[in-house]
Amino acid sequence: MEFSEYFPVWNQLTSRQKETVAAKVTFRSVEKGAMLHSGIDCTGLLLIKSGQLRAFILSKEGREVTIYRLFDRDICLLSASCVLRSIQFDITVTAEKETELWIIPADVYKQLMEQSAAVSNYTNEVMASRFSEVMWLMEQIMWNSMDKRVALFLLEEAAIEDASLLHITHESIANHLGTHREVVTRMLRYFQSEGMVRLSRGTVELTDQMKLESLSEA
Amino acid sequence: MEFSEYFPVWNQLTSRQKETVAAKVTFRSVEKGAMLHSGIDCTGLLLIKSGQLRAFILSKEGREVTIYRLFDRDICLLSASCVLRSIQFDITVTAEKETELWIIPADVYKQLMEQSAAVSNYTNEVMASRFSEVMWLMEQIMWNSMDKRVALFLLEEAAIEDASLLHITHESIANHLGTHREVVTRMLRYFQSEGMVRLSRGTVELTDQMKLESLSEA
Repeated sequence: MEFSEYFPVWNQLTSRQKETVAAKVTFRSVEKGAMLHSGIDCTGLLLIKSGQLRAFILSKEGREVTIYRLFDRDICLLSASCVLRSIQFDITVTAEKETELWIIPADVYKQLMEQSAAVSNYTNEVMASRFSEVMWLMEQIMWNSMDKRVALFLLEEAAIEDASLLHITHESIANHLGTHREVVTRMLRYFQSEGMVRLSRGTVELTDQMKLESLSEA
Repeated sequence: MEFSEYFPVWNQLTSRQKETVAAKVTFRSVEKGAMLHSGIDCTGLLLIKSGQLRAFILSKEGREVTIYRLFDRDICLLSASCVLRSIQFDITVTAEKETELWIIPADVYKQLMEQSAAVSNYTNEVMASRFSEVMWLMEQIMWNSMDKRVALFLLEEAAIEDASLLHITHESIANHLGTHREVVTRMLRYFQSEGMVRLSRGTVELTDQMKLESLSEA
């Protein structure tokens, strides 16, 4: 079973625990755009075989901010928030690309954590790592101006896609950063006038990554 | 030993683990204003007997934002960030009041976590709870305007102090909220003109809590 190669603490489970997990875990393929988790549902832990997920928070008015992204071999813990009663916030998780993943039901995982210090410590590391990403984001929001955040976002996207031509709308950038489309459009036009990007319908092309980097670090 | 009454998972430790912890834990009394932890130090876990601590992040320019506060029986996990290698951010912890606390050395706690699923799961709950506070703060910063945040902060302070007369400077409010003193002063003057507070040197008196509450919920 391939799951065992992807689940980092598999070798620290007892034979009996392995059997239970193997019997309960499910495999899914989802299309780009699919909603995998929302709000207070207790969907279960998501372990990504391949693809890309986005976790974000939503305001009452429907505004969004991306809190983190998940790639191959990453695990999404907050989609199983019922596993930890102290998690008191809601996130939404969607697929940004076609994604193959395993779902470990929340009750199965909770039982594993209660039995195994190894699984529980692994969970601690996963949560600490997401917590760190959110703290990084908080520092960005508090201390960095929007031009730097847009520049950083474009560079990150180019790294993820391994391409300098990004198929992305201004609206979508705004939703990642938790701002308004108009703000992003103004910023991108300024970047274009400085020769850092070239804009056309539905795409942003990075034409001077060095200059974007110095802006983001200024 | 009184520590055993305050440490929530004491009864789930083995006799040997209890002996180790009891031998290694230290007790401290600190004055208001004392710095208990900063940056990348691995101070250890702090368990508060009585008093009040403040955890905050600092920008390169010295700006501050409070990320959470800790009261009687609370535990500060992030002051022992070396326990979890995935914690990649720095916080500062100071005493806001005279505080009595125990310090559990990081290596002692790390060993406990590795041996005991109960201790590890307890750690997960503590971290999830701090994570939730940070997510709440993130939502405040993203979606709430500064007037609401100042109103909420004043109401929170009044609840903590159980008093409507707060001994607090505008500078200190600004440091809690991650903004500039001038912004807070402007906001407080507006609140005063609306009859919600009365300002004088070094104090803010809440004169209409109902009105502040409706503002904060608007």
